[in-house]
Amino acid sequence: MAEDAPPIRFGILGCAEVARKVSRAITLSPNTTLYAVGSRSLDKATKFAASNGFPPHAKVYGSYEGVIEDPEVDAVYVPLPTSLHVQWAVLAAQKKKHLLLEKPVALNVHDLHKILEACESNGLQYMDATMWMHHPRTTQMFHFLSDPQQFGHLQSVHATSTYTASPYFLENDIRVKHGGKCPLMVLTGSVPGVKPDLDALGALGDTGWYCVRAILWASKYELPKSATALHKPTYNDAGVILACAASLSWEDDKVATFYCSFLTNVSMDIIVMGTKGSLRVHDYIIPNQEKEAKFSTSSNSNWVELSIGWAPNPSDNVFYNDLPQEA
Amino acid sequence: MAEDAPPIRFGILGCAEVARKVSRAITLSPNTTLYAVGSRSLDKATKFAASNGFPPHAKVYGSYEGVIEDPEVDAVYVPLPTSLHVQWAVLAAQKKKHLLLEKPVALNVHDLHKILEACESNGLQYMDATMWMHHPRTTQMFHFLSDPQQFGHLQSVHATSTYTASPYFLENDIRVKHGGKCPLMVLTGSVPGVKPDLDALGALGDTGWYCVRAILWASKYELPKSATALHKPTYNDAGVILACAASLSWEDDKVATFYCSFLTNVSMDIIVMGTKGSLRVHDYIIPNQEKEAKFSTSSNSNWVELSIGWAPNPSDNVFYNDLPQEA
Repeated sequence: MAEDAPPIRFGILGCAEVARKVSRAITLSPNTTLYAVGSRSLDKATKFAASNGFPPHAKVYGSYEGVIEDPEVDAVYVPLPTSLHVQWAVLAAQKKKHLLLEKPVALNVHDLHKILEACESNGLQYMDATMWMHHPRTTQMFHFLSDPQQFGHLQSVHATSTYTASPYFLENDIRVKHGGKCPLMVLTGSVPGVKPDLDALGALGDTGWYCVRAILWASKYELPKSATALHKPTYNDAGVILACAASLSWEDDKVATFYCSFLTNVSMDIIVMGTKGSLRVHDYIIPNQEKEAKFSTSSNSNWVELSIGWAPNPSDNVFYNDLPQEA
Repeated sequence: MAEDAPPIRFGILGCAEVARKVSRAITLSPNTTLYAVGSRSLDKATKFAASNGFPPHAKVYGSYEGVIEDPEVDAVYVPLPTSLHVQWAVLAAQKKKHLLLEKPVALNVHDLHKILEACESNGLQYMDATMWMHHPRTTQMFHFLSDPQQFGHLQSVHATSTYTASPYFLENDIRVKHGGKCPLMVLTGSVPGVKPDLDALGALGDTGWYCVRAILWASKYELPKSATALHKPTYNDAGVILACAASLSWEDDKVATFYCSFLTNVSMDIIVMGTKGSLRVHDYIIPNQEKEAKFSTSSNSNWVELSIGWAPNPSDNVFYNDLPQEA
């Protein structure tokens, strides 16, 4: 986009917690601006706009339709529950809005294909909101993994993504409720006394999403031949995954493993091992600090005489960035 | 052992490369001394004693029997090829020698039981030469993993142990030769033109040994319910494992994964994750530096407002030690 092009005007569907972080990012980014927000509750949308840096002229709607029908909106950010993505993303695309979709982007690949097709047939940009992919550190790490002398061929990846969800979350959050069985109830939310679920992928969708992305990224998006759940996942009473491990493998003996969980202290590790080098990062999803991020690499290491130390030792690579990764 | 007790006199069976490191450790340790070495070649044993700090009065034998029959030898260190362990360990135990056995200690659990029984029935100490278990850092790490407030309950472990073996190693080392099929040939080595194998466990025995130990250590030696190889291991032409991944799982949903390889840049990672804390170490087998070692811990971490950083951040724990871990 040219330097002097007008900024892209974003409309936001819903007032999810994560939308606060993305609103800040849209404001920080030099080529985007907050333009509209819609919620089923006009009051909620008004409060959201007031407390998240929306400019005075921003539009506030008491519906999602209001946002996607506003002709001034260039792009729509969709932080709605996953099961609602396909419906609203396709509608927004039909109204010629570019799409930024919160992860997980869809409950299944069929829904994702529908969304992508809607974007393609309307000539629109599609992006998922996996923020770490946009950190300059990620580019540098990918550069290391692509270096035949420093890294060689990929052999193994391990990724983690976990956090300790609060008791309240484990009882109430849509990410631990089951609802795939009753789409009508899901869409209308009309059954009294029942909180229908909207995001039944659980920890696999919320945190495993990052692990799978990290693994595919490290394999340069070469799809694995097989994916296998390890042992049995931990489920809640509604049958939603709270923690699980899995392995992916490729034709050429590359193998990856990951662990994702709502029941484990925060972790976000990637260990990538190649024939000649290896890379470690322990805060790939959210850097420990916003403006400084590091990763560690090791290349062509061996043991010194008598195996009492390494040479060369692994080294840290530190990055300083003005804009956070989500901007 | 009392402060003024005479040092334990060690005899060494064979002149393996690793015996050089352990000879140095026996000299460095305040309560042990090098006393004898035996090899099938007297010349080799003599040269080994001369270049590895044996005292002038040390005994040098042209056979393993010489060492185990020497009444002055208190303990025997056995760095012989794995398939020979059971034979020589049991013979040494029958001669009332305490045992320090190089890893992997046996080709199978049956052989290990024979060795342990020989030690027990003769009232002897048994130890395997897994050096990292004796680093003071390991004690500190275990302390962290035992802390219900800082670590909580174990949820997941991942361990790695890899190195890039040289082309010479991959062609010639006993660790990549197959020989389990012909024990007689193994013991006599008498077939001309054939280098019989003695250590057919390959990467799983040599490097996977460390991963499995790390996982059992982290699980406080609670045995898993199942162990599963992931995908297919990488084999050489003789059918010996050069690289593999596996998972272990317990009744209570704990799960562990590991990766071991002769074809991958040096790695020695343990990531242990609990409900409240996590621990990371990247040089557990051989510290990057002999007299300084660290590990990283994180406890009760969460994201700061807007999820743009962590609080608290993980912290490094650094140890300085005078004696190397193997002493």
